[in-house]
Amino acid sequence: MSSSDIFIGETIGTAILILLGGGVCAAVTLKASKARNAGWLAITFGWGFAVLTAVYTSAPLSGAHLNPAVTLALALKKDGIDWSDVPVYWGGQLLGAMIGAALVWIAYYGQFLAHLTDKEIVGEPKTKAVEAQEKGAGPVLGIFSTGPEVRVAWQNVATEVIGTIVLVLAVLTQGLNGDGKGLGTLGGLLTALVVVSIGLSLGGPTGYAINPARDLGPRIVHALLPLPNKGGSDWSYAWVPVVGPLIGGAIAAGIYNVAFA
Amino acid sequence: MSSSDIFIGETIGTAILILLGGGVCAAVTLKASKARNAGWLAITFGWGFAVLTAVYTSAPLSGAHLNPAVTLALALKKDGIDWSDVPVYWGGQLLGAMIGAALVWIAYYGQFLAHLTDKEIVGEPKTKAVEAQEKGAGPVLGIFSTGPEVRVAWQNVATEVIGTIVLVLAVLTQGLNGDGKGLGTLGGLLTALVVVSIGLSLGGPTGYAINPARDLGPRIVHALLPLPNKGGSDWSYAWVPVVGPLIGGAIAAGIYNVAFA
Amino acid sequence: MSSSDIFIGETIGTAILILLGGGVCAAVTLKASKARNAGWLAITFGWGFAVLTAVYTSAPLSGAHLNPAVTLALALKKDGIDWSDVPVYWGGQLLGAMIGAALVWIAYYGQFLAHLTDKEIVGEPKTKAVEAQEKGAGPVLGIFSTGPEVRVAWQNVATEVIGTIVLVLAVLTQGLNGDGKGLGTLGGLLTALVVVSIGLSLGGPTGYAINPARDLGPRIVHALLPLPNKGGSDWSYAWVPVVGPLIGGAIAAGIYNVAFA
Amino acid sequence: MSSSDIFIGETIGTAILILLGGGVCAAVTLKASKARNAGWLAITFGWGFAVLTAVYTSAPLSGAHLNPAVTLALALKKDGIDWSDVPVYWGGQLLGAMIGAALVWIAYYGQFLAHLTDKEIVGEPKTKAVEAQEKGAGPVLGIFSTGPEVRVAWQNVATEVIGTIVLVLAVLTQGLNGDGKGLGTLGGLLTALVVVSIGLSLGGPTGYAINPARDLGPRIVHALLPLPNKGGSDWSYAWVPVVGPLIGGAIAAGIYNVAFA
Repeated sequence: MSSSDIFIGETIGTAILILLGGGVCAAVTLKASKARNAGWLAITFGWGFAVLTAVYTSAPLSGAHLNPAVTLALALKKDGIDWSDVPVYWGGQLLGAMIGAALVWIAYYGQFLAHLTDKEIVGEPKTKAVEAQEKGAGPVLGIFSTGPEVRVAWQNVATEVIGTIVLVLAVLTQGLNGDGKGLGTLGGLLTALVVVSIGLSLGGPTGYAINPARDLGPRIVHALLPLPNKGGSDWSYAWVPVVGPLIGGAIAAGIYNVAFA
Repeated sequence: MSSSDIFIGETIGTAILILLGGGVCAAVTLKASKARNAGWLAITFGWGFAVLTAVYTSAPLSGAHLNPAVTLALALKKDGIDWSDVPVYWGGQLLGAMIGAALVWIAYYGQFLAHLTDKEIVGEPKTKAVEAQEKGAGPVLGIFSTGPEVRVAWQNVATEVIGTIVLVLAVLTQGLNGDGKGLGTLGGLLTALVVVSIGLSLGGPTGYAINPARDLGPRIVHALLPLPNKGGSDWSYAWVPVVGPLIGGAIAAGIYNVAFA
Repeated sequence: MSSSDIFIGETIGTAILILLGGGVCAAVTLKASKARNAGWLAITFGWGFAVLTAVYTSAPLSGAHLNPAVTLALALKKDGIDWSDVPVYWGGQLLGAMIGAALVWIAYYGQFLAHLTDKEIVGEPKTKAVEAQEKGAGPVLGIFSTGPEVRVAWQNVATEVIGTIVLVLAVLTQGLNGDGKGLGTLGGLLTALVVVSIGLSLGGPTGYAINPARDLGPRIVHALLPLPNKGGSDWSYAWVPVVGPLIGGAIAAGIYNVAFA
Repeated sequence: MSSSDIFIGETIGTAILILLGGGVCAAVTLKASKARNAGWLAITFGWGFAVLTAVYTSAPLSGAHLNPAVTLALALKKDGIDWSDVPVYWGGQLLGAMIGAALVWIAYYGQFLAHLTDKEIVGEPKTKAVEAQEKGAGPVLGIFSTGPEVRVAWQNVATEVIGTIVLVLAVLTQGLNGDGKGLGTLGGLLTALVVVSIGLSLGGPTGYAINPARDLGPRIVHALLPLPNKGGSDWSYAWVPVVGPLIGGAIAAGIYNVAFA
């Protein structure tokens, strides 16, 4: 694969990943959305099938890593990718994540406005989210980035490390295509179901970033977008979903090299 | 494929698509249905598996486009279908969509009557839908065609364009069978899950037509059917789910030709 | 395949189909069940995956028809099964359905007792089902057999005919194994998802029997079981889910022979 | 396969199975979890996809039995595994289950503390689970081990026997890889959907252990962990989810040897 194919593939794929993943959070969260309050199953299947769609539309170009932790693991893996390709993957992933977050904003433009400017919701009891928004810490950050329910740094990092180990180990053992450097079509389906699994089982405490680009790119976009009453971007937490997944990816590559390779 | 195989295949397939897709909307919306209020997950999985079933039952004949935007993209694609086949595909799709909508009416005949003529629902608080119906703008149009939650033309078009780009790009990169001119069995499964994904993630603002025939055919049937108190067919919106998906399909074909072909 | 393999395979497979299909209805309906009120999605996925499991465990022996309407269609299909095998298939299917319904009773023995003898449910508003049970027409019949929400014979038959056409057409076009006389592993998965689709989209009016054995076998067992306060077995409706699916299977075979074969 | 590969594979796979399976129970049960009250569908899909992920990450090493009842059936099966391998499988499974349960505790550390020490849940009616916890029999045992809704030993055993027969028969007929001694990738997907099916259809009475290690390992960890107000480990029930599944696995192997082999 050429560097330009890698960069374009990762940009397209990660943009679709975040468009669809951020999209389901917008769909479930925002006022004037048909999917409002569709619940946790909608979010977890939405993110899982976002992975599936994103892998399909980037695998032919770049092998569909779409996640800096996956790229790191594939560089650490025996017979993996060249280290010189890592910055190209990471760059495409971060740029794609930012584009995807901006596309969510366009697709849900009227919903963001309705949600952030009209606080009275007729015939609906105020949820914790609405109360939080009225206090200034708007729930719309959750459409862009993850955040913990209980803010304890060691546990938050540990949960992200554990979730990413599961993801990357499954990718390494079953998701790779023939050359062992990216995902193929069947790998996209299997990985998507693994992501649903991680969401259902390990998403409760931190919202399962398990992917540094998925969290950092949209957080930057949240900081930049001209949304009214959007609240802060919670930068003090931003290191957790970057560091945790990278540690998890490295551990998974180590387990793979020792036990499976 | 002969023109008659294309026409028959698209008619059968799109009829089943709309029978099942409109059917799940009827099941969730109408009084005296066991699936009443089954929620957004039921609708999105219902439409996704409708695609799956419809592709299976038309792929051997016509390649299962079932969507004028997919047909347009396959004509624009390098080494795609002949332009002379496009009107045959489109004709079968529109006819099939109308037949499917009529079959929904037959399958849910008693439910439509109960819903539209008996306004008191014992033991159930009035929902917004029931209130809307009592004001004359019955929710049954939503069983046939899509409509926006926030009526802003540019956003509604943009959301349909974005959703269709995702659909058609996934079809072009992973859904096609060997000759590259239609879908195969595995393509049907993958495309179905992509449609679930688009529904969950991008369906909130407009109800994700992403297919001109899926919206226009049933809207015509809604206008023709002798349903009591059915309300208007909202023709002022009808152009959006036709124009948006066609633009999206063309853009996706362009992206495919530049980056993937 | 020998007659004894056919009979044993259909008996085992249909027993597992009804054990799991009736089981999910028991799980969602009965008091003292962890799955109580899990909703329509649980029922439709439960029946769909029941098909999947049942096909896997009978396909190697009998080709996993598990449904007299499928057997009829495969006898009517060009190059289909021998007519002399039809009674063997049908006999195994009916016996298996009865065994499956009895196994549901064993697996949920304490739940049936709690539900049918202790009418006060602490901390829970009375549902229509509970009210119906207190009037003597217990909802437990719904664990065994289907029934219409609106009792109009022509519509009830039509809905079952339409649903079965979709099922059998999908089986004929994509579900069959190499010899064209039964289902294989991939066919089991595809058919299962089609059954989820039919449930979500066409299950609202009658509960989608789409299989004469699935309805008649358990209805007989309901009539025979020593359940307290079980109510009647609604024999006046019993012909609909037998006749409708057989008509649907025959029509689907005709469409297949004309358009696809 | 060497004994060390078997032991390591079963330990890793069963640890991931219980991490994800116990994890979804924690996610749905505990306070301060984003998935709180996500419902029975979340639990059944969570356990099913836990099987999928666990099979993928252990199949290359050990064939991914992950269940003493599956191992027993594969020893009883014609041309199955050597009896001398059985203790290696069982040891890895029990150790892995204990590790998995401990990982759930780490991933949900703050949630366990919030749940078990802060009894007032603002803005939320007390559920039966919360009431039970306040009486000392905390619901957190359900995150580790199964328990019956109606405590009748013969029925509880029968339900576990029936559920395990379905699981093991499906594994034996369709889940095995080429050498017939373990699961492959496609077998992992099919088995996962069968486990969703068993959960939806047969999980209501006892919570479907259908796996002695899945129940016993986490119960031991529940007894050992320093959780405040955790309540008892219900050792009087612990024999049921060990004995029932082993009987079921043996019966399924017998059916397979007689009818299918």
